[in-house]
Amino acid sequence: MSLPDSLSKLFAYIDNNKVNFIETLIEAVAIKSVSAWPQTRDECQRMINWAQQKMEALNISCKQVDIGSQDLPDGTKIKLPNILTGTLGNDPAKKTVLVYGHLDVQPAAIEDGWDTDPFVLTPKDGKLYGRGSSDDKGPILCWLNAIEAYQRQNITIPVNIKFVFEGMEESGSIGLHKCLMSMRRWFDDVEFACITDSRWLGNYPCVTYGLRGLAHFNLDIECAKMDLHSGVFGGTVYEAMTDLFNLMGQLVDVNGKILVPGVYDDVEPVKPDEDKIYEKIVFDVDEYQKSIGTPGRLLYENKKDLLQHRWRFPALSIHGISGAHCKPGQKTVIPGKVTGKFSIRLVPNQDPNKIEKLVVDYLSKKFKESGSPNLMKCQMSHGVRAFTENPINHNFQAAVRATEHVYGVEPNLIREGSTIPVTLTFQEVTGKNVLLLPIGCGDDGAHSQNEKINERNFIEGSKVLGAYLYELSKVL
Amino acid sequence: MSLPDSLSKLFAYIDNNKVNFIETLIEAVAIKSVSAWPQTRDECQRMINWAQQKMEALNISCKQVDIGSQDLPDGTKIKLPNILTGTLGNDPAKKTVLVYGHLDVQPAAIEDGWDTDPFVLTPKDGKLYGRGSSDDKGPILCWLNAIEAYQRQNITIPVNIKFVFEGMEESGSIGLHKCLMSMRRWFDDVEFACITDSRWLGNYPCVTYGLRGLAHFNLDIECAKMDLHSGVFGGTVYEAMTDLFNLMGQLVDVNGKILVPGVYDDVEPVKPDEDKIYEKIVFDVDEYQKSIGTPGRLLYENKKDLLQHRWRFPALSIHGISGAHCKPGQKTVIPGKVTGKFSIRLVPNQDPNKIEKLVVDYLSKKFKESGSPNLMKCQMSHGVRAFTENPINHNFQAAVRATEHVYGVEPNLIREGSTIPVTLTFQEVTGKNVLLLPIGCGDDGAHSQNEKINERNFIEGSKVLGAYLYELSKVL
Repeated sequence: MSLPDSLSKLFAYIDNNKVNFIETLIEAVAIKSVSAWPQTRDECQRMINWAQQKMEALNISCKQVDIGSQDLPDGTKIKLPNILTGTLGNDPAKKTVLVYGHLDVQPAAIEDGWDTDPFVLTPKDGKLYGRGSSDDKGPILCWLNAIEAYQRQNITIPVNIKFVFEGMEESGSIGLHKCLMSMRRWFDDVEFACITDSRWLGNYPCVTYGLRGLAHFNLDIECAKMDLHSGVFGGTVYEAMTDLFNLMGQLVDVNGKILVPGVYDDVEPVKPDEDKIYEKIVFDVDEYQKSIGTPGRLLYENKKDLLQHRWRFPALSIHGISGAHCKPGQKTVIPGKVTGKFSIRLVPNQDPNKIEKLVVDYLSKKFKESGSPNLMKCQMSHGVRAFTENPINHNFQAAVRATEHVYGVEPNLIREGSTIPVTLTFQEVTGKNVLLLPIGCGDDGAHSQNEKINERNFIEGSKVLGAYLYELSKVL
Repeated sequence: MSLPDSLSKLFAYIDNNKVNFIETLIEAVAIKSVSAWPQTRDECQRMINWAQQKMEALNISCKQVDIGSQDLPDGTKIKLPNILTGTLGNDPAKKTVLVYGHLDVQPAAIEDGWDTDPFVLTPKDGKLYGRGSSDDKGPILCWLNAIEAYQRQNITIPVNIKFVFEGMEESGSIGLHKCLMSMRRWFDDVEFACITDSRWLGNYPCVTYGLRGLAHFNLDIECAKMDLHSGVFGGTVYEAMTDLFNLMGQLVDVNGKILVPGVYDDVEPVKPDEDKIYEKIVFDVDEYQKSIGTPGRLLYENKKDLLQHRWRFPALSIHGISGAHCKPGQKTVIPGKVTGKFSIRLVPNQDPNKIEKLVVDYLSKKFKESGSPNLMKCQMSHGVRAFTENPINHNFQAAVRATEHVYGVEPNLIREGSTIPVTLTFQEVTGKNVLLLPIGCGDDGAHSQNEKINERNFIEGSKVLGAYLYELSKVL
């Protein structure tokens, strides 16, 4: 496939402006827009303002939408960062694509084990280290880089673009769904949606057509109105922690099989030809295992089973306990009230509310059988369905062609195991095809220490988005 | 029993100086001497220095003993607070009593659910709320109050006193045993030892002749070299938390029965006449239950069974997990390495090393059976035998009489369920009778939120200690 002239010019501009593009990313990473921390909430808004300035410099017409306040657990209220919308072009003869990204980041601190200051973008060995470099400031800047290239090379952008950038994604996208539903008419002309907030599988380009959902549970048990000294009271009270370990020890077996009856009922059986999809995917199981550093084997050692259990089967993880002793060292306490936390990643056809009922009924039954006189309450704190999209679609076709222009290979067609609720909202408000087009690599460490984006992915990713806009105008 | 003149004068002084004594307790509680937190380690030493000043003002000759450093789990070393020794009087014609207390406190923070700042002593309804008010700063000040009363009333203190105050009791008394063993000769003239670091049974004065021991365990499980995103990795790795809940869910049943085979083998059977001891004890089961605030029934509802399971039978408590998510809110993490913490309170005849072997063998067998390929290590981090003393002794007799002088009742003769390792060390280095003479009430909340000491116990307790010194000189 030979490269169209306009894309050649576009790509040359992007290559020639690498240094400028990285400098803008340095500015973006330096803004500490951690949405989880109340004390950096102003920085989230500052990040929104900063992005608006950059977008307006590219003639994108911007608007900030006030989505009100958040109630913190301590009872105080705190302003949410505005949602930033933008419009570039409104030619009725062109198609309109909706673009989403987020400008907030996960918490980060050098004490967590970073090798460099997380808010100082640090280049090393072709990698750009810094919080948000890959999740999701870098990919947002790739859009702006591509648009700048079009404009400076005097190439007409062949589609209209609508932008939704938010500042609360890492904290559950509070307020986003409601806001987008209320401005539903604004999406009337959208024909495609594209989200650049996921990553490749390993180091091979990808387009993504599915995500797992999430049912997150809190299990409260109370045995006393306060914490008790285990010497003074041990042996006389029914202990909440005993109940908690008894119940949560019956959620999942060592091999990852969820023990809650009925949980697998709605999971779609693997279709006869489905396994073939996995054969094509470029993925190295050994590399994957090495990056995790498991002391023994993985749950599955062949590519197909491993990927299916990441993407198309549910998985239950126990995350922790609040209310118990959790620091290093010894504290001989009988915690009075504890909350166990666990979640199930859901797959297509699983309904979070049905899963909630199954889990709550199961644990309630087990608790009753145990005979404990303590107080027990289990509820789902957060439920999101899985997302899937039909990849046999012009939107995906444009992304595949764009990837081929830049990387010279057909991208892996993949799902992801994690959850991005805005995918479902976009399906709902547009009724159109929603594509996940990842920019960074699987080893970018999106929520970990030493997050990075490869310089290559940042620059070639800008080209992919530019080419995607071009190919969108060609399809149909 | 009529009150001797010297005690009348002593008690009057203590009553008249209540306000000053409480002010000194305010100062003591304000020093955040939490030994478990590395960041407040300096405050533990500051607390030792503060106590030395107060003691020197009473002509107690003090010395601080350097006991070196502690190795923290992260590999760093941190200085231990010195041990504070003191001597008051060395008249060979008098008996010498050895006194022990500790100046460090349990962790506390308003977020844990305190109604007031834990480090600001707050009087309310005859109670003095604050961390360390009862455990163990208040009781230490009772000694100093009693000595001040003797001196200001010009009454000769009828015994010599040696003091050992430490700053690491709440963190396993690291370094204390070795230090006391190395200064063994210093104890040569000691005839009695008295420890004021326990509490009454309920609200009735007590003297205490037994304590349970402790075997504290850490169970480490590792499944990855770092924490993992549960969306991205869930379903592909053997999770450490699953193993932990599986194993720790098999330690104890809901009714408190320890499931580790052999753990009960060495527990002394109840003797035919043993039950009678419990008949005499003043104790209200309903009050006990009310003070805990259990939502349902207790494990035992009659006095004898309840007290026997506090004092003479072992109990297993699960305290918590480090390395997992433990804050409020949602964090969908697969922790890479976790440490479960639990302990067994031991009773006379149980050997901590034998218990360690039983527990480690049991969990290792269960882990092997589970087939998990993760890394698992279980070890006893702290082991202490139970303590018992013969209460038919002049030391106890003096304490009983002192209590009768102040409270007008014969104290309960009790054991305690908790562990104070220094009791065993004192038996070893002195070869003499070791008495526990509690000052505070059973509902003081020694390791809980809203720890308090009743104003009455603080003031009358000062009198009891003054009277105990007097009675010690009369016995024999």
